[in-house]
Amino acid sequence: MHARQLTKPDGRRLWLYSRRPIPAGIEAPGTMAPAPGRGAVATHLRWHPLRGEWVSYAPHRQGRTFLPASNPLAPSVDPARPTEVPAGDYDIAVFENLFPAFGPGDAPPAFSAAGQTIVASRPGGGAAEVVVFTQDATTSLGALPLGHIELLFAVWADRTRALGQRPDVEYVFPFENRGVEVGVTLHHPHGQIYGYPFVPPVAERELALQRAHREAHGTGLLADLVRAELDDGRRVIYAGPEAIAFLPAFARFAYEVWIAPRREAPSLTDLGAPERADLARALKTALLRLDGLWGRPMPYLLQVHQAPTDGAAHPEAHVHVEIYPALRMPGRLKYLACTEIGAGAFTADTLPEEKAAELRAVEVVID
Amino acid sequence: MHARQLTKPDGRRLWLYSRRPIPAGIEAPGTMAPAPGRGAVATHLRWHPLRGEWVSYAPHRQGRTFLPASNPLAPSVDPARPTEVPAGDYDIAVFENLFPAFGPGDAPPAFSAAGQTIVASRPGGGAAEVVVFTQDATTSLGALPLGHIELLFAVWADRTRALGQRPDVEYVFPFENRGVEVGVTLHHPHGQIYGYPFVPPVAERELALQRAHREAHGTGLLADLVRAELDDGRRVIYAGPEAIAFLPAFARFAYEVWIAPRREAPSLTDLGAPERADLARALKTALLRLDGLWGRPMPYLLQVHQAPTDGAAHPEAHVHVEIYPALRMPGRLKYLACTEIGAGAFTADTLPEEKAAELRAVEVVID
Repeated sequence: MHARQLTKPDGRRLWLYSRRPIPAGIEAPGTMAPAPGRGAVATHLRWHPLRGEWVSYAPHRQGRTFLPASNPLAPSVDPARPTEVPAGDYDIAVFENLFPAFGPGDAPPAFSAAGQTIVASRPGGGAAEVVVFTQDATTSLGALPLGHIELLFAVWADRTRALGQRPDVEYVFPFENRGVEVGVTLHHPHGQIYGYPFVPPVAERELALQRAHREAHGTGLLADLVRAELDDGRRVIYAGPEAIAFLPAFARFAYEVWIAPRREAPSLTDLGAPERADLARALKTALLRLDGLWGRPMPYLLQVHQAPTDGAAHPEAHVHVEIYPALRMPGRLKYLACTEIGAGAFTADTLPEEKAAELRAVEVVID
Repeated sequence: MHARQLTKPDGRRLWLYSRRPIPAGIEAPGTMAPAPGRGAVATHLRWHPLRGEWVSYAPHRQGRTFLPASNPLAPSVDPARPTEVPAGDYDIAVFENLFPAFGPGDAPPAFSAAGQTIVASRPGGGAAEVVVFTQDATTSLGALPLGHIELLFAVWADRTRALGQRPDVEYVFPFENRGVEVGVTLHHPHGQIYGYPFVPPVAERELALQRAHREAHGTGLLADLVRAELDDGRRVIYAGPEAIAFLPAFARFAYEVWIAPRREAPSLTDLGAPERADLARALKTALLRLDGLWGRPMPYLLQVHQAPTDGAAHPEAHVHVEIYPALRMPGRLKYLACTEIGAGAFTADTLPEEKAAELRAVEVVID
């Protein structure tokens, strides 16, 4: 992997990654838009005492770009109309978000005279980066060559390492929201990375359950699950030497797919090159099957779950990718409503065994 | 409150509720549609071992009604085309859902030969009911007269009592999903009640945190919060003798509103008539302000959080309503994507103090 760090005129950093040496002379484009003025109210966190979780307030984001006229993620070719990333020979670009949901914050406002002891607050912190998967605006993550997807795993690992070293980042979360159905209006293939200033609630719960399993059985929860899925076979859609892709028996979304290394690597940073290569193959297989299912790009939420970067060792963690496709049938969204959002209880009207068979039947070419 | 239980030709039960005596002679309408045949696979639950929660599988729901041509919730006037509820003098009707997400189930299928010890499963259970708020298809919950909304609180309490007595119901959850933005295609004012066969994850977490607060401070968490909000005042949009409506300081949605009795009543069944009356006033004030804000019906998720019906005492619980409006600006949805659904971390780009001021400025007539 070849990498280079640049700095934008507005001070934000930009990283280029490539499978080939990056030519000299590539510079960060000019400032695309005036950076938003720091609002009167700083980015800060408030404690939700009934759910036991931090809520992040970033009031400057209210004015963020919506349906931009041009494509800010295309390579910048016209100096008069700069985009976020330069032209030149590289594969993947990462830059600091102009409208970060997480970032350095000041002291929170005095939002409550009396309730401060119940609703704790603290300055913001953390990071929000944008990952431009490719220079080609018309393709998709799953359609990229295997080597390019393998590079993405290396880029995610590099950002996990870099962000994880910051004292204000306790959990690094690479993800892709894909499709207008999940609110994404910019079609250039891209994802994001949040560096949370806390371990987010789902990860916290997952890690606690993984620790409990290890204490009770001496084995890894996800590793045991992977072995069980391989033994059963009905929900497996890819089984390679280092990685597998499967619909978990407890899928909450009709076509939910998980991708995991067989080995219990806690973090992206613990993966070796053969593992990254096979994870790329598993991910590409899964994404092409999802897109091929109904001959249209499947909208989805894709996230990497891994060990926190909170300074502690996390042998209980087992890095994996979870993909939640937004459709349950052609043209029919799985809406998340009161039962899911208010009670946390998911109801599925399909069986993972049947959906896995549908996905396995989709023929794909992996190269 | 006057109530009567009827039985539909297909065996499902129907309850009528009214502020006036219900005339004799009202009968359940004929069978609207052939009841779905019990699928080959029964309704059942599977354990999500990494999130520590039950996922419900109800495969028969895949074929459920979508965009029905007529309005199945209108009073039935044509015997040749029966709807779900009869005509006649009553206010609110409740009936068992034709396509229940929760209901009696059989033994789960053998979905995993090897993983059964990791992914536990059990037969379904619980209940799913539909609550028709009014016979008028063109109105809305907030627009109903105060006495009618007060009756709804009594109906919710009655259903909580009835469902709570069932051994397969551990938590009763009345809710309303409103608007096409949250997936609701039937515009007749209605809500639902789930009787979960388990305490759902959000409630479980809430109750644990409330118990911990009570042990640490000797006071109720939500009661302390209500007092703090009243003291501060900036986020309060209604303060009556028995109930208040406010945007919590840690709101996760831009216009999130909570409605709570001042007294720590654990459940809807613990409320007295004056409390129901003032809660109705608080709820009506909140809903009319949300609808009046931009002169259009606000899409929202509305739920009642209360004590479980699992047989234990729950002095830590404090019944309240949580309303999550789906829009953060006119025409702009708050999408729930990877950070919210995959990590459980909410980010807000507005401040509850400012949004409360906007809602307080909406003039409404409450009668």
